[in-house]
Amino acid sequence: MADKVTPRSEDYSRWYTDVIQRAEMADYAPVRGCMVIRPYGYALWENLQSALDKRFKATGHVNAYFPLFIPMSFLRKEQEHVEGFSPQLAIVTIGGGEQLEDPLVVRPTSETIIGHMYAQWVRSYRDLPILINLWNSVVRWEQRTRLFLRTTEFLWQEGHTAHATYEEAEEETLRMLNIYADFAQNEAAVPVIMGRKSESEKFAGALRTYSIEAMMGDKRALQSATSHNLGQNFAKAFNIQFLDRDNALKTCWTTSWGLSSRMIGAIIMVHGDDQGLILPPRLAPLQAVIVPIWKSDAERAGVMESAQALAKELDGLRIKLDDRDDVSPGFKFNDWEMRGVPLRIEIGPRDVAQGNLVLARRDVPGRPGKTTVPRAGARQRIEEMLATIQSDLYARALAFREANTREPRSYDEFKAAVEDGFARAWWCGSAACEAQVQEETKATIRNVPLDQPGGTGPCIVCNSTATEQAIFAKAY
Amino acid sequence: MADKVTPRSEDYSRWYTDVIQRAEMADYAPVRGCMVIRPYGYALWENLQSALDKRFKATGHVNAYFPLFIPMSFLRKEQEHVEGFSPQLAIVTIGGGEQLEDPLVVRPTSETIIGHMYAQWVRSYRDLPILINLWNSVVRWEQRTRLFLRTTEFLWQEGHTAHATYEEAEEETLRMLNIYADFAQNEAAVPVIMGRKSESEKFAGALRTYSIEAMMGDKRALQSATSHNLGQNFAKAFNIQFLDRDNALKTCWTTSWGLSSRMIGAIIMVHGDDQGLILPPRLAPLQAVIVPIWKSDAERAGVMESAQALAKELDGLRIKLDDRDDVSPGFKFNDWEMRGVPLRIEIGPRDVAQGNLVLARRDVPGRPGKTTVPRAGARQRIEEMLATIQSDLYARALAFREANTREPRSYDEFKAAVEDGFARAWWCGSAACEAQVQEETKATIRNVPLDQPGGTGPCIVCNSTATEQAIFAKAY
Repeated sequence: MADKVTPRSEDYSRWYTDVIQRAEMADYAPVRGCMVIRPYGYALWENLQSALDKRFKATGHVNAYFPLFIPMSFLRKEQEHVEGFSPQLAIVTIGGGEQLEDPLVVRPTSETIIGHMYAQWVRSYRDLPILINLWNSVVRWEQRTRLFLRTTEFLWQEGHTAHATYEEAEEETLRMLNIYADFAQNEAAVPVIMGRKSESEKFAGALRTYSIEAMMGDKRALQSATSHNLGQNFAKAFNIQFLDRDNALKTCWTTSWGLSSRMIGAIIMVHGDDQGLILPPRLAPLQAVIVPIWKSDAERAGVMESAQALAKELDGLRIKLDDRDDVSPGFKFNDWEMRGVPLRIEIGPRDVAQGNLVLARRDVPGRPGKTTVPRAGARQRIEEMLATIQSDLYARALAFREANTREPRSYDEFKAAVEDGFARAWWCGSAACEAQVQEETKATIRNVPLDQPGGTGPCIVCNSTATEQAIFAKAY
Repeated sequence: MADKVTPRSEDYSRWYTDVIQRAEMADYAPVRGCMVIRPYGYALWENLQSALDKRFKATGHVNAYFPLFIPMSFLRKEQEHVEGFSPQLAIVTIGGGEQLEDPLVVRPTSETIIGHMYAQWVRSYRDLPILINLWNSVVRWEQRTRLFLRTTEFLWQEGHTAHATYEEAEEETLRMLNIYADFAQNEAAVPVIMGRKSESEKFAGALRTYSIEAMMGDKRALQSATSHNLGQNFAKAFNIQFLDRDNALKTCWTTSWGLSSRMIGAIIMVHGDDQGLILPPRLAPLQAVIVPIWKSDAERAGVMESAQALAKELDGLRIKLDDRDDVSPGFKFNDWEMRGVPLRIEIGPRDVAQGNLVLARRDVPGRPGKTTVPRAGARQRIEEMLATIQSDLYARALAFREANTREPRSYDEFKAAVEDGFARAWWCGSAACEAQVQEETKATIRNVPLDQPGGTGPCIVCNSTATEQAIFAKAY
């Protein structure tokens, strides 16, 4: 555990994998492209789930469970959808020893089976809206995989709603986008840009897709969640109809939205450093670790007594007292730094004698991050410091993104910008300009931010008049 | 929703399905043998998860996630295991458009992939015990399916632990059995019998399987959870070895244990009546529903104000104020009775004027279950009543089981007993006697209870000396 990881400057991708494995977040599974989420990584996922789930429920959503298997024939009912997902499917052809007549797809996403059921559940306007969320896993066969970011199977939530009008569906789509942004910024301390995806990047079968996009530590972008206004595409394919107040039979408008275990990759890459993970206090499995320090057995007794009393005082916070006898304090320091515990609390014999504690911030390495505080009233100081770490992590990530986002005036400036960060530039909206950028720079349009300057400007590619700016970047 | 369900006396099986569908707990999925767990059923599952998860964590267990797919070759490493599960497998043969060389099994249970990973994670005695639990779904191809009780895919948790000694593994196996019993009795209000499964009924690959068994409303048994001491079978098949304190390389001892969404079936069948579900207050998605009653608009204002104030006072309990204007109070009564909400709180104009509320218990239908209580201090009365309902449900189920469990003295008495309940009888331990019972009566040995009278008695089948009693019953 005390082994150093590959420095980010040397090989960012290797650093990422090293950190995940050394911190015991996840491991490669013996199944192509799949991962095992180890207890420390899963505890982070549980905290993330809980923070998101509260937001979903507070806005009237309820959870449910839909089958893992979807008949192949269902996928074919929405043309764009089946074309988008076909290359990525895992297909069950044998069940109970027999060849299946209609093969079953392991769900890559659940719009089709949801559509089938909603068509049965919805009769009248009184049954609307339906606001259901699922916590499950999905399977998409991937050629190149990377822990948390792109795996054949991944954990996520998928929300699926049905509404009486276009306006309500669009409102829901944006409501959930805002919830994702709020979650990312206030829980994960990850600044994000909310925006609309281009036509070429939208979800297979959607009318319109929105995303939140974040800048990773290597200045590449990561799409961190998406929210889709599905229009009436799925409702028509599956006959989700309702009798409205005016006694007319109408077709529903549906949405879907998802955030996955990929978010864990974002947290790792936005905050981590060469010593390992740095986890935001609001989601960290452990918010603080108490490391007792002693040399003699006589010292040990007093220190441990004090440490245990402190652990009790901190009840309700996510705290661990590291009372291992077979490793040194220095080993413990490195170990918990690797795992990104936001705060270390050191207690030595002198601290006990003087009624003090030493607090060491994970996000501020070395001396500058250390503070000696009085033991009395320590809980309040610790809670305040955790809140400070949370907001400092966000501020640092935001400053980093801003420092690495340019507004190029020429296509040459643009090409330089996307080599090493985000470019925010006018875009005429044409697929041709979008494709040219991708071909020449490997950067893609991440999204068209909701937040626009107004007015018009020259398209960064073709110079024709553009009414919107887009974020361009190389992406995971 | 107000439609009556089929009476239990007329067709128990139909009653069960009716109740589930009318209460919107679950629905049939358009995939053979699969179900959709609807929001109301899933909310019950979430409460069940939370109550169990707390118990797991309080005993040192942590959660993790393992892949959905298991290479077919892994299953073959443990002989009994593959023989037990082979007929029930769903097999992915196509991934990303290509035929797979080593087909992937959709996990029927995760012992094999867990074994593979533990072998990599365990090096020394310091790494032990490993105490991991998974919340996921598994797939077992079933010929005859029934909502919640037996579906091709079902939700469950599977715990997997590795230990240094046989004794520790056995202790863990029994610890988890006790946790299941505690959960069933104190949360689900379902009385259970803890015991050991016979050799013929144990888990494929286990050294020993324990179960908790409950009596349903039709006097049949339902195995409600199992806990397996796997011995060294999987540890040997997957080489889970550790260097012990004495520097010797040793093989681990492992356990696994699971409780599934089947438990929801138990709750339905143990407590429900001809009016629908009756849910235990500790797990019920809604613990009480407030039904305002008025005739005129003038009455409505006062009643609604009072109902809203009450809902606020009951904050923290799981409460719903049913403020629908388009259905009658009578409709609402039937609706919430069908859904098994433990307590109904009625507020009418006279109640408001007199400072009273009417509380109506779901488990005691009609007049006898109604009490008028003063509005002041209502919260305490309501909490007490919920606690009373919880313990009364348990007591009633226990009395029912005891009234329908016989201790037959002869094989003829035995045959009559298992026609209509449980038989507790001496069993010599032979597979032949077990098989004879099953052939002649369709009853099986549910388990050999941990709680034994001591001494010996004549085997109910062959009359030879037996040292243990077993529970025999027809089972789901």
